[in-house]
Amino acid sequence: MDKGVFVSAFSNGDVFVGETLGTAALILLGGGVCAAVTLKKSKAFNAGWLAITFGWGFAVLIAAYMTGSKSGAHLNPAVTIALAVKSGEWSQVPLYIGSQMLGAMIGATLVWLTYLGQFQANEEPTLGIFSTGPEIRNPIQNVLTEVIGTFVLCMAILTLGKAEIKGMGTLIVALTVVGIGLSLGGPTGYAINPARDLGPRIMHALLPIPGKGSSDWSYAWVPVVGPLIGGALAGGVYNALF
Amino acid sequence: MDKGVFVSAFSNGDVFVGETLGTAALILLGGGVCAAVTLKKSKAFNAGWLAITFGWGFAVLIAAYMTGSKSGAHLNPAVTIALAVKSGEWSQVPLYIGSQMLGAMIGATLVWLTYLGQFQANEEPTLGIFSTGPEIRNPIQNVLTEVIGTFVLCMAILTLGKAEIKGMGTLIVALTVVGIGLSLGGPTGYAINPARDLGPRIMHALLPIPGKGSSDWSYAWVPVVGPLIGGALAGGVYNALF
Amino acid sequence: MDKGVFVSAFSNGDVFVGETLGTAALILLGGGVCAAVTLKKSKAFNAGWLAITFGWGFAVLIAAYMTGSKSGAHLNPAVTIALAVKSGEWSQVPLYIGSQMLGAMIGATLVWLTYLGQFQANEEPTLGIFSTGPEIRNPIQNVLTEVIGTFVLCMAILTLGKAEIKGMGTLIVALTVVGIGLSLGGPTGYAINPARDLGPRIMHALLPIPGKGSSDWSYAWVPVVGPLIGGALAGGVYNALF
Amino acid sequence: MDKGVFVSAFSNGDVFVGETLGTAALILLGGGVCAAVTLKKSKAFNAGWLAITFGWGFAVLIAAYMTGSKSGAHLNPAVTIALAVKSGEWSQVPLYIGSQMLGAMIGATLVWLTYLGQFQANEEPTLGIFSTGPEIRNPIQNVLTEVIGTFVLCMAILTLGKAEIKGMGTLIVALTVVGIGLSLGGPTGYAINPARDLGPRIMHALLPIPGKGSSDWSYAWVPVVGPLIGGALAGGVYNALF
Repeated sequence: MDKGVFVSAFSNGDVFVGETLGTAALILLGGGVCAAVTLKKSKAFNAGWLAITFGWGFAVLIAAYMTGSKSGAHLNPAVTIALAVKSGEWSQVPLYIGSQMLGAMIGATLVWLTYLGQFQANEEPTLGIFSTGPEIRNPIQNVLTEVIGTFVLCMAILTLGKAEIKGMGTLIVALTVVGIGLSLGGPTGYAINPARDLGPRIMHALLPIPGKGSSDWSYAWVPVVGPLIGGALAGGVYNALF
Repeated sequence: MDKGVFVSAFSNGDVFVGETLGTAALILLGGGVCAAVTLKKSKAFNAGWLAITFGWGFAVLIAAYMTGSKSGAHLNPAVTIALAVKSGEWSQVPLYIGSQMLGAMIGATLVWLTYLGQFQANEEPTLGIFSTGPEIRNPIQNVLTEVIGTFVLCMAILTLGKAEIKGMGTLIVALTVVGIGLSLGGPTGYAINPARDLGPRIMHALLPIPGKGSSDWSYAWVPVVGPLIGGALAGGVYNALF
Repeated sequence: MDKGVFVSAFSNGDVFVGETLGTAALILLGGGVCAAVTLKKSKAFNAGWLAITFGWGFAVLIAAYMTGSKSGAHLNPAVTIALAVKSGEWSQVPLYIGSQMLGAMIGATLVWLTYLGQFQANEEPTLGIFSTGPEIRNPIQNVLTEVIGTFVLCMAILTLGKAEIKGMGTLIVALTVVGIGLSLGGPTGYAINPARDLGPRIMHALLPIPGKGSSDWSYAWVPVVGPLIGGALAGGVYNALF
Repeated sequence: MDKGVFVSAFSNGDVFVGETLGTAALILLGGGVCAAVTLKKSKAFNAGWLAITFGWGFAVLIAAYMTGSKSGAHLNPAVTIALAVKSGEWSQVPLYIGSQMLGAMIGATLVWLTYLGQFQANEEPTLGIFSTGPEIRNPIQNVLTEVIGTFVLCMAILTLGKAEIKGMGTLIVALTVVGIGLSLGGPTGYAINPARDLGPRIMHALLPIPGKGSSDWSYAWVPVVGPLIGGALAGGVYNALF
């Protein structure tokens, strides 16, 4: 999983399959842990923040090992942007991001199917299962928090190319995501991935969930813009320092 | 532990020993954590969902490292089916599944022996220590949840063959099981393994536990059929996409 | 860390240093997490069973990586017995076990020094920080529980020699110990190591701790005999099956 | 990441960049998890001690993988001292420690920016997010606790050079830090790193946080002196025994 190898490393068909399947798995498992902890008729109800952060980290682990051989498993437009800034190669960027968005929407639908009975019995707002929201709403501060979190994620991924870890890099990235969640997730819920937030938000708006509440579109740009800035910044800083 | 190597990779005797011993260890440790968290006179009483999911994940870790050299450590009929669909080689499938069932029944008995004093003092239904049950009973939905969870598990195992991880694959599979538990375990308790559910359910019916309650046979087919469909589906999708 | 290499693999001096230092580190960290969670004036007070089991697992991780190059890092008479039964080589067994006992007593003293202020302010029984005790006192059942837990531990260690994991074996053993704690620790607190229980019990009797309560000598033989049987059994079963 | 290679292994420029960037990342993530669990308007509020200890461990993981290729990722004056005592090479020690202090101050500032809204709404003492403090104030005992914790950390790092783990050493060190936190962090909050404590304490004094409370300068020497003694002691003991 040398994510540094980006220029024409994978065929367009493989990128499409890998990023769509991988991001679907990522959101199924990441959204899944939010559903598990949030919905009342769930064995994991109220399992706590540590369960959520490990759940998202292992979601990355599973999704990225599953599809690394296909597409390098970016699974995140911010990672794709970071690698494009680093390498100067942009030709596959639209394909990567489009596939990630499609995968995220499929993944959110699979969360709904997995917890169908729970969603049917639902009576409370469920946006938190699909997308992030701030504890204190202040767009500039919220963007800043997402920039910092995504910068750490992308710097970690870019610099891992220099460690002698071979196939274990995906495990390290997964634990990195646990760490970012624990440390930087408090204010905004760490989207750190535009597809992870926007794709499920679209599905939240579309899916027939009783009492699902608002999809909070006024906040939707924050977890898109923040991570993209953070990813681009990481690519630039990497090139300057490494 | 290249689980992709299935065709005649192991002798019948080794398969029998490996799968019986391994599934016994899996259920001893997996059922053990359920006993530990559920039974009142236990130091782990009420330790929570994170303890249960890590407990099951490390059960896979221990059992699969212990027996990987003997039989490839499927320890799960759904995994065996997934590998058979992938490879087209079915001759050892009955031996694998039979050994797994035997091992699961031995493992459930060992849980009972480990917590013998606790079971003797028991006054509440204990099926949850042995087998899974749904939070909202709806067979079609419950099957669907088990199909999705098992599909993720089997796709993760099949695709791991393409990563450069050598002997560390078992660790990744173990953490994958933690992740599936956290994310997809909420509705049905993630059997994702027919032997894991049916073997201990048989022992629950047989063992002399005071106040043990119903073995809920009307639900017993769900965690058998769902995982088998999920495993077969993963084998087919793997062949189509990878 | 090929623990299978036992016959004269290490000089007597290295065994003494490695096992004494390693078992001291094991008990400092393992007893330490019990102190951290039990004592009232501690930042980890009431941190729960998951904290205790991870704490003991990482205690094994730290102690065994630290001293693996010196002595193979048995750190446990039951592991030494298992390896002796497997290999038929008993000449260094007394040296291993003696060093482990010395190390365990040093480690328990270091726990006391680390938490000195807390122990001085103590008013409650503190044996649980040093040694194990049963939730339901029944010597035969308690021995059986310890036999099963130690058998799993020693089988896991013996069979790891067949996996391609090189230096990562210690990590797997550490996570195995977390798993055994979660799954099999409920009834007796998983001594699974005679030195881990007896050494600190001696120090509990000797150290000047106000209100420390009984050292419960009537139970002391259980976590010695059970683990020794479990280790010997694992060595024999390994030779029969692998 | 062979931390044993210290003598002129890295250029002065790389040491400056690596240690500044790495320690900034360490404190951003380590201070971040303290902010996440402590501040009321945070999704991780009250997530518990296990979250804090895993958060700090993964902070080490992320920071050390990010900068290991630049400077060996000491990120801690006590580690630098331990390596200097071991190797007898002191020429780069001031550069390492100066860069670590600068990085720690930058990291603490980034915590403040990440949680800016939370800090602006704050009404309670916040020193615990920046620096450590004792549960029972007794300077000699508190120094002793920090000496023991740091000694274990530095011995673990020094002896890891003898294990066949290649690029996975950083993962082991990260889990070692989780373990030290769980086991030895109860009395003083495990600074085990002078820069980690002093750098953020300076920023706590400087940053404009409403109701931030005292920076507790009377205690500030303890988490500096204790870890330095522990690191030096580990270097000496390593040379004597290994």
